[in-house]
Parts: sequence; C-alpha cells; structure tokens
Amino acid sequence: MDEDYKYTNEAFVLDHRLESDGEWVTDLGCCRVLMMNNKSVPWFILVPRMVDATELTDLPMEVQQQILQEINQVAAMVTHLYAPHKLNIGALGNIVSQLHIHVIGRFTHDPAWPNPVWGQLAAQCYTTQQLSKNLKQAISFLDTA
Amino acid sequence: MDEDYKYTNEAFVLDHRLESDGEWVTDLGCCRVLMMNNKSVPWFILVPRMVDATELTDLPMEVQQQILQEINQVAAMVTHLYAPHKLNIGALGNIVSQLHIHVIGRFTHDPAWPNPVWGQLAAQCYTTQQLSKNLKQAISFLDTA
Repeated sequence: MDEDYKYTNEAFVLDHRLESDGEWVTDLGCCRVLMMNNKSVPWFILVPRMVDATELTDLPMEVQQQILQEINQVAAMVTHLYAPHKLNIGALGNIVSQLHIHVIGRFTHDPAWPNPVWGQLAAQCYTTQQLSKNLKQAISFLDTA
Repeated sequence: MDEDYKYTNEAFVLDHRLESDGEWVTDLGCCRVLMMNNKSVPWFILVPRMVDATELTDLPMEVQQQILQEINQVAAMVTHLYAPHKLNIGALGNIVSQLHIHVIGRFTHDPAWPNPVWGQLAAQCYTTQQLSKNLKQAISFLDTA
C-alpha cells in the first residue's frame, strides 16, 4: 500500500452536502480537499477519507498529525495564491457531522469580516472561467508541494 | 529549562481582551488555558505563550504538534466534564489577532445551535459558585492528566 494512503479507508463516502457544496480539488495523503464555490472568500475544506470520523480529537495522534500537516499544505496554498489578511481554521460539524476542517482566507474587506463566514455569506458563485482557474491553481500548488 | 516549557516565551503578554473575557484555568506546556465566563456552553481557549504568534500554521511543526496535543487535553476535559454532543475547535483571530484556539462543547439545545457561538451568545455569566466549581474541575482534570 502506498505510504500516502495508510490513513484512508476505501469505504469512505463523502457526505452529500459536502459533495454538493464543494468542488473537488485533489486528494492528499489523508484528506480530500474541496473548494467552496463562493467568490467572496477563498474557502477550502479538508475531509479525512475515513469512515465514521466526526471529532478530530477522537483520532489516533499520528492521524491527527497527518491532518495537521495537510492543513498546513492547504494554508500555504491559500496564503500563496490569495494573500489573505487572516486565516480561519476550524472543525465545527454542527450541521454536517462527517469530520471536515475549514481553511478560509479572510480579508478585512470581505462581506462577513470580522465575523465568521459560516451562515454569513450570500451565495456568490465564481463564473465557470473563474472556478476553473481557481481549481487549477489550487491543484497545481497542492500536487507539486 | 523544564522540557514542558521549551516552547514558551517569558516575554509573552496575554491580549487584554482575552484577559478580560477569559478566566485563567492553568498553563500547559505551551498554552495558557482560559475559560469563558458564559454558562450557555463550556468554552475554553488555548493561547500559546509566545510573542507575536498569529497563525497556527506559521509556527514550526513541532510547536504545532505540541499545541495539538494540548488541544486534545482540553477536548478530553470538556468531553469528560460536560459530555457535549459536538466539539467546535477553531482558530479565527479576526478580532483578537494573538493566536488563540477555541475548544467549545456544543449541545443541540444550546442557544446558538447549530450556528457557531461567536457573536451568537448573550452574556450569561456563571454565578460565583458555579464559576469556582467549573474552574476547579477543569484545573483538576488538566493538572492530573
């Protein structure tokens, strides 16, 4: 088995709400990376490809450390591509219980600032061209990191 | 130097808003632990005792791993003492930029559910007796872990 995939589970199924809300970017060693289609902020989500994971702190420490490493990869990508003023990193899961970690680039001029983005942003989809460009940039950064 | 304190900095000063909003619980190896005085939810905050830290992912990986370990200690305490339905763990810092990580126990009957708590909870202070009891329980759990 590929070392990169030792923490993943073939029976993993992405929650249907995450699937419908997020665009698939790439799979890292443990996590599937999604991008929210909202042009107000660069908003990425890491979903560990494991069955029945809901709390980060319930996982074995070596898995948590792998997820932390991948959070760093996504944070570096957001910082490099978007130069946000602040990062918001969080695992909430009050609505979708499948473990997922948000990595969001925030700007002092974004529509929700200084509040959290959850539930605070109107739907502002990228154009097809913008979406394609943002996904390509993210994939390129993460796949070559 | 005590091994537990290798990541801390003597010049650390707690942000005055965190100091006024949070009750001091204890100091772990890297982080100061605070408790918010709001009885609606068990709400703890870890503040790495380092100068000028704002983004978790800017810190050396070994420091991030130490903080992750301490997040686990606080999460275990919240789970043990309050048996919440869900944990919310997040590093935002849009208002107070000094790096701090929230570990919040959420209940499906709490006043903000299923929204995030930030900016959503009315001030509901503990009584002096409740505050003292909650602090003592938290200190006892964390200091003997």
